[in-house]
Amino acid sequence: MLKVAIIGASGYTGLELMRLSVQHPEIELIAVTSEKFSGMKVSEVFPSLSDQVSLVFQSIADKEDINNADFIFSALPHKEAMRIVPALLESSTKIVDLSADFRLQDPALYEKWYQKHTAPELLQDAVYGLSELNREKIKKAQLVANPGCYPTAVLLSLIPVIKNGIIDISSIIIDAKSGISGSGRSVALSSLYAEVNEGVKAYKVTAHQHTPEMEQELSKIAIKEVRISFTPHLIPMNRGILATVYASLSQKISEEEIIDIYRQYYEKDIFVNMCPRGIFPSTNQVKGSNYCAIGVAIDEVTNRLIVVSVIDNLLKGGAGQAMQNMNIMASFSEGSGLGQLSLFP
Amino acid sequence: MLKVAIIGASGYTGLELMRLSVQHPEIELIAVTSEKFSGMKVSEVFPSLSDQVSLVFQSIADKEDINNADFIFSALPHKEAMRIVPALLESSTKIVDLSADFRLQDPALYEKWYQKHTAPELLQDAVYGLSELNREKIKKAQLVANPGCYPTAVLLSLIPVIKNGIIDISSIIIDAKSGISGSGRSVALSSLYAEVNEGVKAYKVTAHQHTPEMEQELSKIAIKEVRISFTPHLIPMNRGILATVYASLSQKISEEEIIDIYRQYYEKDIFVNMCPRGIFPSTNQVKGSNYCAIGVAIDEVTNRLIVVSVIDNLLKGGAGQAMQNMNIMASFSEGSGLGQLSLFP
Amino acid sequence: MLKVAIIGASGYTGLELMRLSVQHPEIELIAVTSEKFSGMKVSEVFPSLSDQVSLVFQSIADKEDINNADFIFSALPHKEAMRIVPALLESSTKIVDLSADFRLQDPALYEKWYQKHTAPELLQDAVYGLSELNREKIKKAQLVANPGCYPTAVLLSLIPVIKNGIIDISSIIIDAKSGISGSGRSVALSSLYAEVNEGVKAYKVTAHQHTPEMEQELSKIAIKEVRISFTPHLIPMNRGILATVYASLSQKISEEEIIDIYRQYYEKDIFVNMCPRGIFPSTNQVKGSNYCAIGVAIDEVTNRLIVVSVIDNLLKGGAGQAMQNMNIMASFSEGSGLGQLSLFP
Amino acid sequence: MLKVAIIGASGYTGLELMRLSVQHPEIELIAVTSEKFSGMKVSEVFPSLSDQVSLVFQSIADKEDINNADFIFSALPHKEAMRIVPALLESSTKIVDLSADFRLQDPALYEKWYQKHTAPELLQDAVYGLSELNREKIKKAQLVANPGCYPTAVLLSLIPVIKNGIIDISSIIIDAKSGISGSGRSVALSSLYAEVNEGVKAYKVTAHQHTPEMEQELSKIAIKEVRISFTPHLIPMNRGILATVYASLSQKISEEEIIDIYRQYYEKDIFVNMCPRGIFPSTNQVKGSNYCAIGVAIDEVTNRLIVVSVIDNLLKGGAGQAMQNMNIMASFSEGSGLGQLSLFP
Repeated sequence: MLKVAIIGASGYTGLELMRLSVQHPEIELIAVTSEKFSGMKVSEVFPSLSDQVSLVFQSIADKEDINNADFIFSALPHKEAMRIVPALLESSTKIVDLSADFRLQDPALYEKWYQKHTAPELLQDAVYGLSELNREKIKKAQLVANPGCYPTAVLLSLIPVIKNGIIDISSIIIDAKSGISGSGRSVALSSLYAEVNEGVKAYKVTAHQHTPEMEQELSKIAIKEVRISFTPHLIPMNRGILATVYASLSQKISEEEIIDIYRQYYEKDIFVNMCPRGIFPSTNQVKGSNYCAIGVAIDEVTNRLIVVSVIDNLLKGGAGQAMQNMNIMASFSEGSGLGQLSLFP
Repeated sequence: MLKVAIIGASGYTGLELMRLSVQHPEIELIAVTSEKFSGMKVSEVFPSLSDQVSLVFQSIADKEDINNADFIFSALPHKEAMRIVPALLESSTKIVDLSADFRLQDPALYEKWYQKHTAPELLQDAVYGLSELNREKIKKAQLVANPGCYPTAVLLSLIPVIKNGIIDISSIIIDAKSGISGSGRSVALSSLYAEVNEGVKAYKVTAHQHTPEMEQELSKIAIKEVRISFTPHLIPMNRGILATVYASLSQKISEEEIIDIYRQYYEKDIFVNMCPRGIFPSTNQVKGSNYCAIGVAIDEVTNRLIVVSVIDNLLKGGAGQAMQNMNIMASFSEGSGLGQLSLFP
Repeated sequence: MLKVAIIGASGYTGLELMRLSVQHPEIELIAVTSEKFSGMKVSEVFPSLSDQVSLVFQSIADKEDINNADFIFSALPHKEAMRIVPALLESSTKIVDLSADFRLQDPALYEKWYQKHTAPELLQDAVYGLSELNREKIKKAQLVANPGCYPTAVLLSLIPVIKNGIIDISSIIIDAKSGISGSGRSVALSSLYAEVNEGVKAYKVTAHQHTPEMEQELSKIAIKEVRISFTPHLIPMNRGILATVYASLSQKISEEEIIDIYRQYYEKDIFVNMCPRGIFPSTNQVKGSNYCAIGVAIDEVTNRLIVVSVIDNLLKGGAGQAMQNMNIMASFSEGSGLGQLSLFP
Repeated sequence: MLKVAIIGASGYTGLELMRLSVQHPEIELIAVTSEKFSGMKVSEVFPSLSDQVSLVFQSIADKEDINNADFIFSALPHKEAMRIVPALLESSTKIVDLSADFRLQDPALYEKWYQKHTAPELLQDAVYGLSELNREKIKKAQLVANPGCYPTAVLLSLIPVIKNGIIDISSIIIDAKSGISGSGRSVALSSLYAEVNEGVKAYKVTAHQHTPEMEQELSKIAIKEVRISFTPHLIPMNRGILATVYASLSQKISEEEIIDIYRQYYEKDIFVNMCPRGIFPSTNQVKGSNYCAIGVAIDEVTNRLIVVSVIDNLLKGGAGQAMQNMNIMASFSEGSGLGQLSLFP
């Protein structure tokens, strides 16, 4: 059994990491930390884990248990992770970090969108953990930077068509919709039930911090600089991201041919499903699972490709993909512990 | 007092027309029809109108009351309206029709998206009832075709910048999000609570019947043919449409200048509000009111304009705009009976 | 025009008081206070009031405008109201206080449920503002203590049957369900969207502070001590309270006779509607209005009366009833400014 | 591997049975029937099962696969099940029936609440499948009548205190709240999103068909006739039942002692969790799992016991308990295939 610790486990992503860990047949969860709830039982903070997790949240300062871990998930917020993770790496523990701190390879870019990076020396070695894209690198990595929720949905929807050169990469527009759990469990006026419910709004228009992350990865795939327009929206639901991606086609091609391109690209990827022609996915068909579902259409009149992809932001967009990456890093079966089907309705 | 009848009043739009009529100081509601609920009290079908509407739903075949009306709202579904409305016009009653049947001026276009039109002779005289755009024509019209909910949100967000020639009209992409009441009160599996809740999905991708309506009106404004990409999405909430509109800028311009363009264009329009720079509207700030709120941003890197507009689909996107048009047609104050502020939360 | 000020106006009840004030034909809103948002425009804090309220939140320390008011609504939290209200009363302004601070006549009871009362001398003169119960006293009052949201729903459902002596007053059990706006706009983990959504729970079981308020009023009506079991529940919706009340019948009586008792008791009350026999109300039929709707049933087997009553907690359960009380105090028509029908769906 | 068929699998309970079957390590799902969707792939009807269930819905008339099954779940509606199940039993297959048709032992009672029973000879042998109550009988049963969702929540909350004789059984009042999935996937106006959302209502007051089921089982436990008042309410959420149970205490006892009574009674029951004193459960802590969580309080003033219990109506209140019963009948570990933890948020 792989001994696993979770650092910063009291947010929704941490909760999901605990839930998945408990159900994983090959790992043992030995420690979870939370500064806010330090000393409290996990089951007091999260009654949904009652009787399943007997652990008590400890402070990250209590190093003993953490040092005993073979593997660490860090679910600390960005800016904090880069202060804590370097020391954890010293003991050669493998780590999947779920923050944004090790995703951007250029420290200047990080500084522009966040603040000055305090561990820039790690940026080149950290592997960007989109499992389907970087499986081989993830296998050998010590530090995996788990992708953001939006980038996961968007990259999975764009990689095959960019690799196949069928879209004009200067024309990409991404209109994304996310459930509120993407904002985390922090207490803020804008996350109150009555503020969110019965409303939809755009936020961080032209200014969302996941934009450079998507541009970095898309540029690597396109092998030239890609700049996108990205507009995220907040939807009154707990979980789920739906990304609607628009791009001009650079050649004549049919919907069937495009679906084939995706099917071939994701042939061996158990967590990516293509919808049949004419069918588009709803986020509620992936809720609670690690799946991504993708549907495509061609707008004949304007010659644009429209791709719709959906994930559960807390699973394939967070804890699920982190577990998938751990499976790859630990040479487990890639889907181990991730067999839960979507919970609908 | 203007005597008003509502044909096809048992859907959500009909309900809103009744609610607004009861609260309008200058009109008297004398008849409401519903084939489905004929003979039932309105307050039995809609307890929210208890003690306020003492009318009984009658069949449209009971012509007496309808013939006594000075003004008629038709809230029949498309394809039915074109069969019923022509006869009602003969008595020189003024009518606002809320279906799609008189919005498209080209019968061939109607036939392509719906079916063969049975009253094509009315299409040229019917006035497209976007109040802010066609106020003068509406004043003199006998038949006003009330705009669709999506077209209302979209046209209000695009008219000023198209009139001012600052966007490339071949680049328009519209990503729209609507609450479920837009699907009406018809009983369908896809409208069940458990099917809709906790999910977001795209629907009628490249195939929504509001597309030609928007293209027709945008083309008239641009004075050349405009083709758009339009993708509607279904959001788990009762009311509200948010349209996110993307278009390439055709000149250098600042956000402040663009906001000024909108402010000038809508200077005399009491129901359109511009958000301050950097602020984007939520649908929940217009819920229950006839307002449209608009926010804009420039994506500097890609030189695109992003416009976000919100309305309550049942009010400015339906019954509210119909009442606004009636006010114009009857020479009442344009906002008469529409003074209800948004209900938040 | 009556000059009105609202103290503590930045919560949901304050928002509703502002919205209703703007739409009231006989009053002028001259000042609104908020310590938290002092100096900010109302329309910045509440975009739903954009262009309708041009006021700026001021501190309660800026006394000039408040001193000019003919009438004051205090929407301060309990424990704060009792510190601020006494000074305001000195200038003989009439006040409706929406907190719990002047509802309990016994200072010892207040102290037991809240803390030591700092203005006990006001408790005997403050009038309990259930409009339907105390209309004559409210007319002459200087200080009206607006009832709590739960007590309003519960008292309206019980007064007629207690007055008529048909239930065993020792058997009353109240199971109440409230939307989340009842918790106010304060930022708390338990009010976050993702915590509330898709869940229902009981809270403050046997310990809710509205219990003594209900017992006080029920005891006055019964002319002997009444003790109840009261369990409130939190429902994932914005607005609405539904109270299900259980009591043993003390005599043989039919459902029709009971409905008649209610109809007679509320004959002149424009905001209380009885449902026909066999019909029970939903909170969504009173959302956005000042109405209370009540349905009753007799459980023949156990000889219990079951009464279901619904209100909008922010309106009849808060700001709406406060406005109704102001109308009574100012000798306006009781429904003035409260004509908005329920917003469904 | 146990070969399993599901009859009537296209409702929400059928969907859950399929989902659980696919994840169960000891069974193989060999056939699923639906008259409505006969001939369609399961994954077309339920995209949430994409790539996991390759079966096609067949008609119940296609007997071959069904005859090959070692075990059958019947998720047919009541009144239909009693027509189909008898023939299936002839081949000595074991069956868990999820309808109401075999729950009431008295055919006259069934006739009163439903219609004349067409297979009354089965009623005495069918075992009432509340797993925690009838484990030994279930083990030997050929036909298990899976309890209703409300009775499951209610019985688990009452059995220990009735067995211990600490409540007055003539005083039981049950106020229950259910998510909308309890109404099934049938298309009805009252189940539409916009009708359900933002509202709570009581329904079938004094007339819910689960009442005699609860009274039958409570009477057996109390060894005398028990009659209850039961009022169900509809809550705007997908899943979950919360039952709030009120009963007069017949002796002096503390909350700790009562909690101990529950803990002892459910000592060996893996799916029933007692909350610590002062804590009450939310339905969202059992969403997606087979757990029941129970909290208790004593109302000192009125000497009443208040018990709050929560389940996921589709799992412990339906498909989950059916699977638990199958595990018992097939001598599998009782929790086999039911290890999924609650999905929160």
